[in-house]
Amino acid sequence: MNLILLDEQDFIGPNQVRLSGRRFQHIQEVHRAEPGQTLAVGLRNGAMGQGQVLSLNPEDLTMSVSLDQTAPPPLPLTLILALPRPKMLRRIIQHATTLGVSRLVLINAVRVEKSFWQTPFLTEASLLEQCTLGLEQARATHMPEILLRKRFKPFVEDELPAMMAGTTAILAHPYTEQPCPAGMTTPVTLAVGPEGGFVPYEVEKLQEAGFSAVHLGPRILRVETAVPVLISKLFY
Amino acid sequence: MNLILLDEQDFIGPNQVRLSGRRFQHIQEVHRAEPGQTLAVGLRNGAMGQGQVLSLNPEDLTMSVSLDQTAPPPLPLTLILALPRPKMLRRIIQHATTLGVSRLVLINAVRVEKSFWQTPFLTEASLLEQCTLGLEQARATHMPEILLRKRFKPFVEDELPAMMAGTTAILAHPYTEQPCPAGMTTPVTLAVGPEGGFVPYEVEKLQEAGFSAVHLGPRILRVETAVPVLISKLFY
Repeated sequence: MNLILLDEQDFIGPNQVRLSGRRFQHIQEVHRAEPGQTLAVGLRNGAMGQGQVLSLNPEDLTMSVSLDQTAPPPLPLTLILALPRPKMLRRIIQHATTLGVSRLVLINAVRVEKSFWQTPFLTEASLLEQCTLGLEQARATHMPEILLRKRFKPFVEDELPAMMAGTTAILAHPYTEQPCPAGMTTPVTLAVGPEGGFVPYEVEKLQEAGFSAVHLGPRILRVETAVPVLISKLFY
Repeated sequence: MNLILLDEQDFIGPNQVRLSGRRFQHIQEVHRAEPGQTLAVGLRNGAMGQGQVLSLNPEDLTMSVSLDQTAPPPLPLTLILALPRPKMLRRIIQHATTLGVSRLVLINAVRVEKSFWQTPFLTEASLLEQCTLGLEQARATHMPEILLRKRFKPFVEDELPAMMAGTTAILAHPYTEQPCPAGMTTPVTLAVGPEGGFVPYEVEKLQEAGFSAVHLGPRILRVETAVPVLISKLFY
């Protein structure tokens, strides 16, 4: 937790918050905070700054906060990702949030197992939790928008064209000629398939929609490795 | 398994191998191979090519192999990594191998918990297994050299100077001015600290040894995320 992430409902006065639960425990047990100590804080989707511990109680603590720093801006990146298997999903959502993805669209694909859509990690509460962990790690505040799209064709035909308008649309695909571009400063829509890749029909549909297939060299990366490697190459 | 990785001891003739155990099961259950089918194969630390299934038996299979392709060359990269916690260690070794790291040195640091050195994942058999999984994923054959160095100071003072000679030596460090270089084609020695970072004494020792501290932007990445992001930025 490199940042204590605050929500509007934590505020008990104009510049004062009360924290209980996980953040309270973390501040007590990891930071071993005493009254007077300052910690990095940030308001979800807002500014960052410093919090100073005012009082430590058995079940909660109060802090005065000063939010006078701009949070790192999110990357102009929409990541369209074939739904990964549950245990990988959690890590990828955290990594994508930490890295600054603006919008994450989890889609279906032929090689996505149907059971993956049943995971409790896709509930709103769990997605919120993964994003919160990712922001606390990054020391950032901007929540990615997360969309779930269980039908590939209607998404690609009806919704994707407007979503990708004005962006560079690229599809990570190991078996292609064109290398992934680097040092982007303009918006990107990046599509990443499931383990085993998109099937040819899906690749064609994305290419018809305007995606260019790009590769990352001769090595075939797991989705979990490919996502940070692609985001790094594009924007870091 | 995007590649069936072969060892010298699998050969029962000049161009013929017999496989049992894990690879045999995978070829049967995932590839559902029949005699005549061809699969991508590679010799550990050697060439790649095609294998053709000759016979499937209850406990093993035989393949004729033709190793006529050059494997992707490993990156000219030595990664010096403060030993991560065990469950992360396994993933990082797989990711680093998949990405093509030539040499991985796992070192001690103040913020490495002593118990991490007790993990069974550091046994020779387990390291071999993680590297094998990484190469099977990548479709590559070159094994990284893995060194364990439990004493920071003797390593940095006595062994590191020769190891880093002739390389660009960089230290990933969030709080510094200089951004990480990109598009390297010459050898790099990259040092990455534990969660929480190297302590100031360790940073100083590495800087005295000739390392330049570089950052990856305002976001603080987990080691697991930082490693692929750094390797991508440097070489991909």
